[in-house]
Amino acid sequence: MGPVFGFSGGQFRPLSESEVQLVHSTAIELLETLGLSQPLASMIDLVCMEGGEISAEGRLLFPKALIEDSISNARRDVVLYSRRPGWDLDLSGSRVHFSTGGAAPSILGNDGTYRDSTVQDLQDAARVTDNLDHIHHFSRSLVARDVPDQRGLDVNTAYACLSGTDKHVSMSISDASHVPEIAQMCYAIAGDEAAFRARPFMTIMVCHVVPPMRFATEACETLEAAVRAGFPVQLISAGQAGATSPASIAGSLVQAVAETLAGLAFVQLIDPNVQAVFAPKPLVADLRTGAMCGGGGEQAILMAGAAQMGRFYDLPTSSIAGITDAKLPDAQHGYEKSLAVALAAQAGANLVTQACGMQASLLGVSLESYVIDNDMLGAIMRTIRGVEVTEENLSAEVIANASLGDGHYLGHADTLNRMKADYIYPDIADRQSPADWQDSGGLDIYSRARARVRDLLAKDAREIIPQQIDRSLRERFDILLPVANSSSP
Amino acid sequence: MGPVFGFSGGQFRPLSESEVQLVHSTAIELLETLGLSQPLASMIDLVCMEGGEISAEGRLLFPKALIEDSISNARRDVVLYSRRPGWDLDLSGSRVHFSTGGAAPSILGNDGTYRDSTVQDLQDAARVTDNLDHIHHFSRSLVARDVPDQRGLDVNTAYACLSGTDKHVSMSISDASHVPEIAQMCYAIAGDEAAFRARPFMTIMVCHVVPPMRFATEACETLEAAVRAGFPVQLISAGQAGATSPASIAGSLVQAVAETLAGLAFVQLIDPNVQAVFAPKPLVADLRTGAMCGGGGEQAILMAGAAQMGRFYDLPTSSIAGITDAKLPDAQHGYEKSLAVALAAQAGANLVTQACGMQASLLGVSLESYVIDNDMLGAIMRTIRGVEVTEENLSAEVIANASLGDGHYLGHADTLNRMKADYIYPDIADRQSPADWQDSGGLDIYSRARARVRDLLAKDAREIIPQQIDRSLRERFDILLPVANSSSP
Repeated sequence: MGPVFGFSGGQFRPLSESEVQLVHSTAIELLETLGLSQPLASMIDLVCMEGGEISAEGRLLFPKALIEDSISNARRDVVLYSRRPGWDLDLSGSRVHFSTGGAAPSILGNDGTYRDSTVQDLQDAARVTDNLDHIHHFSRSLVARDVPDQRGLDVNTAYACLSGTDKHVSMSISDASHVPEIAQMCYAIAGDEAAFRARPFMTIMVCHVVPPMRFATEACETLEAAVRAGFPVQLISAGQAGATSPASIAGSLVQAVAETLAGLAFVQLIDPNVQAVFAPKPLVADLRTGAMCGGGGEQAILMAGAAQMGRFYDLPTSSIAGITDAKLPDAQHGYEKSLAVALAAQAGANLVTQACGMQASLLGVSLESYVIDNDMLGAIMRTIRGVEVTEENLSAEVIANASLGDGHYLGHADTLNRMKADYIYPDIADRQSPADWQDSGGLDIYSRARARVRDLLAKDAREIIPQQIDRSLRERFDILLPVANSSSP
Repeated sequence: MGPVFGFSGGQFRPLSESEVQLVHSTAIELLETLGLSQPLASMIDLVCMEGGEISAEGRLLFPKALIEDSISNARRDVVLYSRRPGWDLDLSGSRVHFSTGGAAPSILGNDGTYRDSTVQDLQDAARVTDNLDHIHHFSRSLVARDVPDQRGLDVNTAYACLSGTDKHVSMSISDASHVPEIAQMCYAIAGDEAAFRARPFMTIMVCHVVPPMRFATEACETLEAAVRAGFPVQLISAGQAGATSPASIAGSLVQAVAETLAGLAFVQLIDPNVQAVFAPKPLVADLRTGAMCGGGGEQAILMAGAAQMGRFYDLPTSSIAGITDAKLPDAQHGYEKSLAVALAAQAGANLVTQACGMQASLLGVSLESYVIDNDMLGAIMRTIRGVEVTEENLSAEVIANASLGDGHYLGHADTLNRMKADYIYPDIADRQSPADWQDSGGLDIYSRARARVRDLLAKDAREIIPQQIDRSLRERFDILLPVANSSSP
């Protein structure tokens, strides 16, 4: 099957129009009157040239006109390019796409326990998802904890992602001084800098704030460097309701919107042509313990509301959804992920990250989950496609013929024609009769996913980075992953 | 926790306004020009008095005005009464409630295999769900296959449901001649007939059509008898896309709407004051095999479209959602159910049946699934409640205080106040840290649910039917279930 993505969401609108306006006006008011602390010196200069001020407490106040201009001037034509033909992701309108995501420190092993994740795990995650049709984008999901230093971590993270899949890739960078190396690696793979800038196939994810309402100084420096190097950027605010944002769902929403808009204003002052993705990604804490919990209904509706704000602004918008608090890929895993991803997607998020693979409130990844969640994402994408009511699809004549004829539709021409065109079939989800299922071993989907992951990783690796380029990268960078036994391209 | 239900859905509108109008006008046209075959004699009389006709093929054609009148004259104030204080379900507007449902022939046993279901299993299902806060209504889910005859089946089904829970109950009745006995049982429990008619606590579910576009003769007779006996009724059309309705999602939708409207016209001609629930419940077949499959995105979006049609008509509307093709309560179970239930509920279905407990494309029930799905339904209901954007909830002052103060919200008064008011906490879903989870046994949610079901069924049964009434029922009806060791009421 080829890629099936880019259908338009936006039919779910959890906020009324007046609620949307109230969130917007309150966000503007927060930016004007409360502002954000710890701005960069370069940011202060840029914002104050546009009418901003520093408050008595040293907070950077953003004038309403600057925020409104940055919304109206933002690029709507952001495309996340891919090295794989046909897999460019057009984030305009309310087109929906699904991505991995995360920065988990651990991976769920075959023995059902968690262990520290490695750079090989990260490449394996990229390789597994490279094979899965409903995962459209690979965002770094695992932290390679076997890399001893931060610079090496960033370089090897980039290499693991870029060598594991040729779908669009994203990652964060821990320090602005590492941006040039990551950029050089991308330029080399693209051919040269101009080729990368024309079709950048990697996004830099930046949490530019430490909520509440405080800039993350180092991340903002990285953000500035990434924009100047030609990367598309995601502007992420990820407060936790009850911990770093208000316990009120509406309050967490408005704080996330305000913080993300501050980032948008900043990057557009750096480069009016920046490919920026609006990414308010508010999270939720379990108020009984203060620990993050991402599987509840509070998380799902909060994120859907944030996605709707993205649609209100008509900005390329990324959402976080698909967090589960479950430790294993069990029924809880399934229902928590599906609820949140479905609502974010139906609300019109252009790119849903963490939509697959995550476990344990983002603390772990499971390769098996990618395979399971891929089927879930296919089903959700089918719902985004919608009912498609047209005279032809309503089939009045087909209904009359069947009703007046043999009383069923099985084997009819219309049925056979639609079998492939209108339906998405799952990969490992079970649709057997109970007897056949029992005869085939009576397995749950997790067991079937283990077998699929084993098979995928046992295959020779597809050559994602051509050998000659790979050799030159290994000369310039300290790449820890071994040269793969690649199959022919 | 008390009941948490009745929040308003309807924010998800998969069909545009013009799509809704096209579905409606095509349904009317089908009823006017194609009509339905095999009408009852009584139905022909009633419909032809209102301008209907019998076609050359013997099909009953419904005039547009009759259908439009039956939509506009239908009761909007349907309440599904409960014997439990505070648990009446108001189906007006777009209020959402969750229910069991189904007619499964088997149950998933403790050993992970399916066996024929019994009347004791049915009462156990009612008892288990009686304890679960997010299951608001008990619709007969299992067929008691140990009851030898149809009359005994209906009587014992009614008793198993009514003695297992005092939430609102629903069931189907296999033959019109059995309706008086079921009615007498309900009247006796209510005190007398007038008391039951004033607050009927049982709905009769009727599949009044055999799709495509054919009346189910015996079911229509049962429907007529049930309406005359004072029962609220659900009018169910359940064609399967690709088998008994068009493979096109839009075509299946319009056929289901037309068939359900035909039933609505009929019951209102019987009794203009009938409490009727509009229940288009279109299903989907896997076109590769012709077997029913309920877990795909096609099913979820089709049902959400049908729910939206109910909202367009402003009729009390019931949806089927929560079908999974999974045989075990695994990740597939979770994501398939959650997708379909969330979309039906957000589309504004007033009563979502089959929302919990079902397995194996409706062929089986799992008691453990009720416990798992209850947590899912709580999370979904939280998303129906919405973001609730108000000046107070936006918390601008709370944000300013935290930002200018200690930089977090943990332990703040606002946070503590919202902990209970704004959040729904799961019962058995896991939110522990990976280490704590490992220390507590590293179990999946299915294992935890098994323990919870064991505990629930080991408790003395709550006395649902007072002993004196129970004795009189046992004198009048051949009740197979033994007298329970009840705890005090």
